[in-house]
Amino acid sequence: MPLSLNLDMIREARKRLAGVIHPTPLDHSTTFSRLTGSEVYFKLENLQKTGSFKIRGAYNKIMSLTPEERDRGVIAASAGNHAQGVAYAATKAGIRSVVVMPEGAPISKVVATRGYGGRVVLAGGGYDEAFEYACQMQKETGATLVHGFDDPMVAAGQGTIGLELMDELPDLDAVLVPVGGGGLISGIAVAVKSLNPRVRVIGIQSRGAPAVYLSLKGGDRRELTSTATIADGISVRRPGEFTLEIMRRYLDDIVLVDDEEISRAILMLLERSKIVVEGAGAVPLAALLHGHVSLPAKKVVLVLSGGNIDVNILSIIIERGLVKSGRIIRLRTVVTDQPGSLQRLLAVLADVRANVISINHDRIKPQVPLKQAEVELLLETSDVEHIEKIMSALSREGYGVERI
Amino acid sequence: MPLSLNLDMIREARKRLAGVIHPTPLDHSTTFSRLTGSEVYFKLENLQKTGSFKIRGAYNKIMSLTPEERDRGVIAASAGNHAQGVAYAATKAGIRSVVVMPEGAPISKVVATRGYGGRVVLAGGGYDEAFEYACQMQKETGATLVHGFDDPMVAAGQGTIGLELMDELPDLDAVLVPVGGGGLISGIAVAVKSLNPRVRVIGIQSRGAPAVYLSLKGGDRRELTSTATIADGISVRRPGEFTLEIMRRYLDDIVLVDDEEISRAILMLLERSKIVVEGAGAVPLAALLHGHVSLPAKKVVLVLSGGNIDVNILSIIIERGLVKSGRIIRLRTVVTDQPGSLQRLLAVLADVRANVISINHDRIKPQVPLKQAEVELLLETSDVEHIEKIMSALSREGYGVERI
Repeated sequence: MPLSLNLDMIREARKRLAGVIHPTPLDHSTTFSRLTGSEVYFKLENLQKTGSFKIRGAYNKIMSLTPEERDRGVIAASAGNHAQGVAYAATKAGIRSVVVMPEGAPISKVVATRGYGGRVVLAGGGYDEAFEYACQMQKETGATLVHGFDDPMVAAGQGTIGLELMDELPDLDAVLVPVGGGGLISGIAVAVKSLNPRVRVIGIQSRGAPAVYLSLKGGDRRELTSTATIADGISVRRPGEFTLEIMRRYLDDIVLVDDEEISRAILMLLERSKIVVEGAGAVPLAALLHGHVSLPAKKVVLVLSGGNIDVNILSIIIERGLVKSGRIIRLRTVVTDQPGSLQRLLAVLADVRANVISINHDRIKPQVPLKQAEVELLLETSDVEHIEKIMSALSREGYGVERI
Repeated sequence: MPLSLNLDMIREARKRLAGVIHPTPLDHSTTFSRLTGSEVYFKLENLQKTGSFKIRGAYNKIMSLTPEERDRGVIAASAGNHAQGVAYAATKAGIRSVVVMPEGAPISKVVATRGYGGRVVLAGGGYDEAFEYACQMQKETGATLVHGFDDPMVAAGQGTIGLELMDELPDLDAVLVPVGGGGLISGIAVAVKSLNPRVRVIGIQSRGAPAVYLSLKGGDRRELTSTATIADGISVRRPGEFTLEIMRRYLDDIVLVDDEEISRAILMLLERSKIVVEGAGAVPLAALLHGHVSLPAKKVVLVLSGGNIDVNILSIIIERGLVKSGRIIRLRTVVTDQPGSLQRLLAVLADVRANVISINHDRIKPQVPLKQAEVELLLETSDVEHIEKIMSALSREGYGVERI
């Protein structure tokens, strides 16, 4: 069977996209090369317009429509990046777009999609219902449905990333790509393998949404009844039909990472590399850091596919990550309520080099004995050993301490 | 008086730095161009090795030493980026480095400096004492002191940013540069003005540490008794002597921004541009966003000088920013403690499209009347009007609501 996606289509997509998208930077990372033993390069699609690669496929699809089709506009269903990509691409192409988003979609993404000029319709409790609603509207209006991944023109647009990689780093050995429905990796795989079949293309899915993984390992197209992952950008219940064909033919491997590994990768990219990625964008690094993929001394490109993470979630990931790695600790203790007693506690802490981030001193709490005051401390620490040192210093000095 | 810094020195610095530093990306920002009316470009020095531009000056200085000087090693005083820059540069050059850091320096920066191969000495309660201690050690050991800014070779290294800008965007109209002691802007100003005197060079200081601002406006070198700003990278009590001369001659203007404006710029860069900057790195955008600098339709480069922000502080900035812009709200109310009552409250909230981020239901608090339960809610909202809509819906339904 002739495949419905080839190198020429991707080259054509590249011409269409010229001047519309950012050719995003490919950044070598000394830090993560040292940590993983590979030569690590980041393809920074989080710096792409609309904050993810989705605009590439959406714009390519839209520009391939006939004038009559364009007149009728486009429609899409998405809770996130595809919504923004379609809205931006349609506005750029001068046509109308309707984006159906589930009712619980993050407000920031609804606002962003409207900001790019898309008409947002809120419908259904989840993606599936929103998609059904979009299909319904499509039939009524005659607009073209732009699928998030299962469309050769969409995948061809995403494949332009592969062409950029081969220009920027012709001797690369492997590409690690996040996989949801398979549009991104299908495009990249066809581009890269057509130019150099020896480059390994490896897909990464979230353990909480492993539809493609199960389908490829199992041999037939699997559908999940539900998904649960922090990587909402790749939280897809079943692979595309067209993309599964491509992936079956081109992928060298596919592996899974869990939410803890993803969160850790997000935090490390933030702290060490000063860049913001969303859950889906962090899965390639999570896989490499935690040994699910091992490519010692090879030149490995990680596609950081997007940066549209809710800053609330980012804030939670930061706090949890710091607590886990022993870099902050919350303590509760009791001191006598008289001048100098708080100072004495702080002197003990200073001695063991615990930096106080915040302190809460409360002497009216009903549970606390009279003439005593409860102190809650948030401390900056270096690691788990440091915390042990602090705890034993405090108990040596007679403080009853509770970790909270 | 002949100036002690010129274009040739900066060109030489560039040769020395080739292959050692990242020539960082210059990124056009559609979002911030639209928001400010200028054509905005970011020079991403936050993606520089060690997370800030400081490595440029430190390495240039070190490579200009004689073999005898190198044998004796280098010494520096810093609580932050300069410490990391010197440690990395010295290790790269194969010489020893001692970095004196104040005792309260953030643990993450101490760990990073050690990680780059520097020997860290903790001494003194603040930068001034640490610097004194370093001068003392310098006399005893004969090591060369690498000043953070007041040294032509250091400024020449920073000036290589100016050369990169003129290559990447030859028709730029203005550069906005963070100013602490003046090393960065001195180097950039000499590079840029020597190549094209019509490019405007504008310095930005924090209102909480305005030493250069006061010195330039006042006509003589001013020293502050204290500083207080979130932008610790430019929290400097007095300008360099050499740098003040250069700035007097080359700067077109210097303006101030406050901590609120800086925090807002940090959060916007995080959310919109997916990049992490520290306080100092955010001051150019803060100035442009809040109208302290106005350059309509001009091509303006903002030097985002570094990304080494403590993630704890980042997490606080996120939370505060969201509360301020009406994107999250904390509420406390009371419901009757019986099945269905919490559900009824949530139905009211769903009706006005308030997304629940977290919920805390407490019926044992002593202040709460028997058979009632206190509910604390963290809600995601779109803006201030949305919050008003939520508040009035709740009170219409009979809930007594308190914002906390």
